[in-house]
Amino acid sequence: MNITIEDIQAAHERIAPHIHRTPILTSRSINEIAGCNLYFKCENFQKIGAFKIRGGMNASLTLPADKLKKGLATHSSGNHAQAIAFAARQLGTKAYIVMPNTSPAVKVAAVKGYGAEITFCEPTQKARESTLQEIIEATGAEFIHPYDDYRVITGQATCAKELIEDAGLFDVVMAPVGGGGLLSGTCLITHYLSPGAIVYAGEPEGAADAVLSIKTGKIEQAPFIKTIADGLLTTLSDKTLAIIQAHVKEILLVSEDEIKAALQLVYERMKIVVEPSCVVPLAAVLKNGKIFSGKKVGIILTGGNVDLIKFSQWFR
Amino acid sequence: MNITIEDIQAAHERIAPHIHRTPILTSRSINEIAGCNLYFKCENFQKIGAFKIRGGMNASLTLPADKLKKGLATHSSGNHAQAIAFAARQLGTKAYIVMPNTSPAVKVAAVKGYGAEITFCEPTQKARESTLQEIIEATGAEFIHPYDDYRVITGQATCAKELIEDAGLFDVVMAPVGGGGLLSGTCLITHYLSPGAIVYAGEPEGAADAVLSIKTGKIEQAPFIKTIADGLLTTLSDKTLAIIQAHVKEILLVSEDEIKAALQLVYERMKIVVEPSCVVPLAAVLKNGKIFSGKKVGIILTGGNVDLIKFSQWFR
Repeated sequence: MNITIEDIQAAHERIAPHIHRTPILTSRSINEIAGCNLYFKCENFQKIGAFKIRGGMNASLTLPADKLKKGLATHSSGNHAQAIAFAARQLGTKAYIVMPNTSPAVKVAAVKGYGAEITFCEPTQKARESTLQEIIEATGAEFIHPYDDYRVITGQATCAKELIEDAGLFDVVMAPVGGGGLLSGTCLITHYLSPGAIVYAGEPEGAADAVLSIKTGKIEQAPFIKTIADGLLTTLSDKTLAIIQAHVKEILLVSEDEIKAALQLVYERMKIVVEPSCVVPLAAVLKNGKIFSGKKVGIILTGGNVDLIKFSQWFR
Repeated sequence: MNITIEDIQAAHERIAPHIHRTPILTSRSINEIAGCNLYFKCENFQKIGAFKIRGGMNASLTLPADKLKKGLATHSSGNHAQAIAFAARQLGTKAYIVMPNTSPAVKVAAVKGYGAEITFCEPTQKARESTLQEIIEATGAEFIHPYDDYRVITGQATCAKELIEDAGLFDVVMAPVGGGGLLSGTCLITHYLSPGAIVYAGEPEGAADAVLSIKTGKIEQAPFIKTIADGLLTTLSDKTLAIIQAHVKEILLVSEDEIKAALQLVYERMKIVVEPSCVVPLAAVLKNGKIFSGKKVGIILTGGNVDLIKFSQWFR
């Protein structure tokens, strides 16, 4: 499938009544430190506190009424679970969420707060998938994958669409990469609307699967997992890998210390609450001064759902 | 002296080129919890990260050129020191800041970062005043008190002025109370622009000097000091006490647990970084449902200069 500009425009019209058009913030002091002009698209202020509502809502809204009536289903312990739960409540249907039995209570509570039905499973990929399969067979609910789904990718593309519409053409557009849904949507819409812009991604050294997958051309696991950017632990999928290979210039790796320094900058200079995953692209900008010097750079700040108790660990 | 609406308007025109017109944010989920409609004036996004630049800048800009040339002086370990240092740099003059030798390094660094000359003294009121006096005698610099100064109070009034201009008339306007400069300016401009609105202040139980001063009609010390709202430790002055007595309906006390709960709400629901002092009025709203039920309430969020390492203590 080829996602066209018309697909993304249609998705945007479809979801617009259900989402916020989030603000774009700039910071003179961070620009001075970075040596370039940064525009931050603040999806931490989005409904459910993250961009994931865009893809989840778009997928849900494309369902025929009789299918939608049977409910939405997914497996996730993160923001995508909240997105599906929120979308289901908005659209008057049920959400079935499979969560590993190791999920933090705060995430479980958030999903429950939107009225979703949670089924716990063992914390393995296999258990997630088989549990979800049983639920789908029993209910007829529609599975909405967090990123290996063109409807979701098309929805996520609306975020950079707003960024470019509201702030003009860019030299560079950046997003973090986890499963690659946001990055895929971002590079596609940038290609359409700001074709001169180069798209870079940021990835933690401690979750370096995407950079490896691009190199070998197939889905790879990270050599090791150790990062506070816990939204970026998933691997790419066939769909996202293909799009990223076609349209992303490079995936830039950053260390944990670089992520923490960028996180502190955003908290202290911009006074906004963001997830560690958000600042991975900013960390890559600060690390690679030569690439970005003097450029106009758009960065998607993906979400703000953080466990405040973890702050003490981050800022030590 | 009587501060008129024209004085405040003139101050606003004077300082406008040097400050941000900060945004007003709302949160549906906090409104649901509070049972009223809250409008937060976000001075955490202000220059220097706090409203204090308004008063400091107004006082500085009223000085004749030959006086301004001799410099600005104050004693402060907090946001007012940064305000005076910033104002001096903006206006091309010197800032002399007296700070207790117990000041946190991060605050000293911020003031130094604006190019101010810092003189350390013993951490007593007497040492602060005598050290400042020596500097003023030696340099001819102008002393700008953090709140016992009509030029400063007039500048702080511009904050609620923007709130009312941008969000319309209110049923209630609220600010925290430390030395009372912001609260004085807030209740004066509310009296002029939204005369039907009632002004309440919030104060920590662990810094309950203002509530006591209002009761006795003279400047009182707090019975005990124990609060994370470290911007509110100062006592009122003669000037602020008189204005507050005339125009503030009541000072509402809140406990430390109530402050922490309100702080967590703002971080988790609004995704913005604010100082603990900021949320004292919100804590008072949450505590006094009957007073505020269904009302349109404006709250000034005073600043966002927090030491992130303290988070671990707040959110436990």
